[in-house]
Amino acid sequence: QSSVTLYGIVDVGVIKNKDAATEMSSGLLSGSRLGFKGSEDLGGGLSAVFKLEGGLAVDTGTPDAFKFNRESYVGLAGGFGEIRFGKIWTAYDDIAWNVNPVFDSAFSPAVVRPSLGFEGNPNNGIKYVSPEFGGVSGAFSTNLREGGATRSTAFQVKYEGGPIYAGLAHQIDKDGVDETKYTTVNGTYDFGAAKLLAGYGRTAEGSVKATDLSIGADVPLGAVTLSAGYVQTKVDGFSERLRSFGLGATYDLSKRTVLYAGARKVNDTTSDLGIAAETTYGLGIKHSF
Amino acid sequence: QSSVTLYGIVDVGVIKNKDAATEMSSGLLSGSRLGFKGSEDLGGGLSAVFKLEGGLAVDTGTPDAFKFNRESYVGLAGGFGEIRFGKIWTAYDDIAWNVNPVFDSAFSPAVVRPSLGFEGNPNNGIKYVSPEFGGVSGAFSTNLREGGATRSTAFQVKYEGGPIYAGLAHQIDKDGVDETKYTTVNGTYDFGAAKLLAGYGRTAEGSVKATDLSIGADVPLGAVTLSAGYVQTKVDGFSERLRSFGLGATYDLSKRTVLYAGARKVNDTTSDLGIAAETTYGLGIKHSF
Amino acid sequence: QSSVTLYGIVDVGVIKNKDAATEMSSGLLSGSRLGFKGSEDLGGGLSAVFKLEGGLAVDTGTPDAFKFNRESYVGLAGGFGEIRFGKIWTAYDDIAWNVNPVFDSAFSPAVVRPSLGFEGNPNNGIKYVSPEFGGVSGAFSTNLREGGATRSTAFQVKYEGGPIYAGLAHQIDKDGVDETKYTTVNGTYDFGAAKLLAGYGRTAEGSVKATDLSIGADVPLGAVTLSAGYVQTKVDGFSERLRSFGLGATYDLSKRTVLYAGARKVNDTTSDLGIAAETTYGLGIKHSF
Repeated sequence: QSSVTLYGIVDVGVIKNKDAATEMSSGLLSGSRLGFKGSEDLGGGLSAVFKLEGGLAVDTGTPDAFKFNRESYVGLAGGFGEIRFGKIWTAYDDIAWNVNPVFDSAFSPAVVRPSLGFEGNPNNGIKYVSPEFGGVSGAFSTNLREGGATRSTAFQVKYEGGPIYAGLAHQIDKDGVDETKYTTVNGTYDFGAAKLLAGYGRTAEGSVKATDLSIGADVPLGAVTLSAGYVQTKVDGFSERLRSFGLGATYDLSKRTVLYAGARKVNDTTSDLGIAAETTYGLGIKHSF
Repeated sequence: QSSVTLYGIVDVGVIKNKDAATEMSSGLLSGSRLGFKGSEDLGGGLSAVFKLEGGLAVDTGTPDAFKFNRESYVGLAGGFGEIRFGKIWTAYDDIAWNVNPVFDSAFSPAVVRPSLGFEGNPNNGIKYVSPEFGGVSGAFSTNLREGGATRSTAFQVKYEGGPIYAGLAHQIDKDGVDETKYTTVNGTYDFGAAKLLAGYGRTAEGSVKATDLSIGADVPLGAVTLSAGYVQTKVDGFSERLRSFGLGATYDLSKRTVLYAGARKVNDTTSDLGIAAETTYGLGIKHSF
Repeated sequence: QSSVTLYGIVDVGVIKNKDAATEMSSGLLSGSRLGFKGSEDLGGGLSAVFKLEGGLAVDTGTPDAFKFNRESYVGLAGGFGEIRFGKIWTAYDDIAWNVNPVFDSAFSPAVVRPSLGFEGNPNNGIKYVSPEFGGVSGAFSTNLREGGATRSTAFQVKYEGGPIYAGLAHQIDKDGVDETKYTTVNGTYDFGAAKLLAGYGRTAEGSVKATDLSIGADVPLGAVTLSAGYVQTKVDGFSERLRSFGLGATYDLSKRTVLYAGARKVNDTTSDLGIAAETTYGLGIKHSF
């Protein structure tokens, strides 16, 4: 018998950039994907695990071909934690997106955070995920440099307990010539009536260094959740700050099906970060299976 | 748990064009495909629906890569009908192939109908399918024009009841420069001993206009079904007519597995339609899962 | 209801060539793959069968796109045997790899056998597999030559009974200009404490002819299996021999999950076979689902 689980997300919406035509877009709330995963109990607390997951462009039928370009790995899990081999999200990636206001969607102000510019899922990767001790867990990831590829080495430590989440992560992306270091610290506190989200990021690409700060809140109102957030980024040696504000709402038709709407504004500052001013808004539907 | 249904068609046969070598071909009776679909009951008569379906070249292993290039959408269904977002067959497509003699296969004489030259499944589409009222239903579809793509706007209305099917559809394909309008009216009547199929199509691409007529019959004889049909196309201002005749049979090994054979002749007339004379015959096997 | 079975192999390891950096690699023990297959009972002993199977690069996420490039066919099975249409492993392929020492893996010394250089799964193929009579069975395969493709025509006959396996296969790969003939005879004998593997291959590409010999043994020791083997190849008219030696072990974590390690040495002889001297070793994990 087959022991594989099929799963995925189909998320389609329309998005309007103030200065462009309305477009249909896939994955505004969460990246559309199709995956195959499974695990096998090997006895003695040990399991074999695998995942094959690829991205979808639901609006256009994935014209560049379906690939397992999100994650593709096999590994072993047990009391020691879990170890994975293949194309895997880095340890930094585990943490970095956790506090992005407006549901970590296409409307999140976090688009201007340089600390999110890391390599997310390098090829030929190895990842170790620790077990949890009293709410604390961590992970380490790296990858082999084949064909001159960038080596991304990362770790994360996080605490989850009661209303609190707190995380710390660091990643170094090293190609033959340059090295970029990413550090992030973030946390959330759930007051019940609202969940506060806050994050700090520091990025160093040689002598160019930048600091970003993100703050936001999710407010649940029955099936509706409102979220708003603000991000500002400062490049060392420049007085201007890059600012972004986002606002959005989700409406849960069920646990698996969500309607959403959001908007984001990025301010008009000359900056070293190469992110243009823009005002974007949109809405859509996300279904998970 | 996974809530997705896997389905597909694997159809392989051999086809011989009178002036060429015998070739193995995929999808002679029905386009080979692999799909993933599902629906979720959201309560109150509302459902979330999705489909991800891609074409297969069974004879060669789909060497150009598997893509969800047939349909790829997410939507909502309820008492109001169904609305879909993504890459979707147009409303015109719902109707246009319904009366093609010889099982709407590679042997159908309908190959010479200009009214079947429309864009079938544009990217970034939106489609509304009405509920049925006393056998009558309809649909409307359009799409966003991204990157200068053609906009295909279509509607269809159809009646199904007892031995009768009747349909009407219209589609306008509009790129930046040109506009092509397709209109089709078609119907079938099931006498029991035979089912008659008839269709009319009108195509207008600027000042070039063409009319096509299709007539055919399916004759069930136990597990065997015979089908034959004739199509003629006339381009306004030209006295010649393009004619095509097709003949075929299916043999049901089960509801899901069918053997088939067919032949088609397209006549040798100089024509504006750019379809060469040909005689084609072939046979194969189709299995649905 | 869906009647399709999902299955696959995810196999990832690291491999080190003496003169190169360590690399992560997919499919060292068995080619990584994802497949969809099914069969339908048609009554009277007849079944419809299909398979769609594509290769995976687990280490890199299959960046060249997922295709059904291993097998892709539909067919009928019954008392007469089985007939398949599509992209199918040739009859020669059924037999040729059966005695490769070191688990027919990336560490097998068989890499220097010219008799394994045949076309494995041509497009537009037809294959007939006979039923078994007293342990004896056989198969025949060929394919249509579309677009100037090579025609690969092959047959195999094999006997399996008690501790014995014995096989014979022949394949002719014919493009417009050249013809290469492959012949192989091989067998295994299971003494219980060890299984002996032996194979002979003869390859003739025009006037260039080569003979290869392979010998090996698998030794089961509980969950561990050791395997070692030696292959030598002689090209007619040259006195040098190409030699390769391989050694490996598997450790079964379960029937479906295996750890493995292996090494192979190819000797440094000037040869017409274009295979460089190399020393390779590696280890990995294979999980089947």
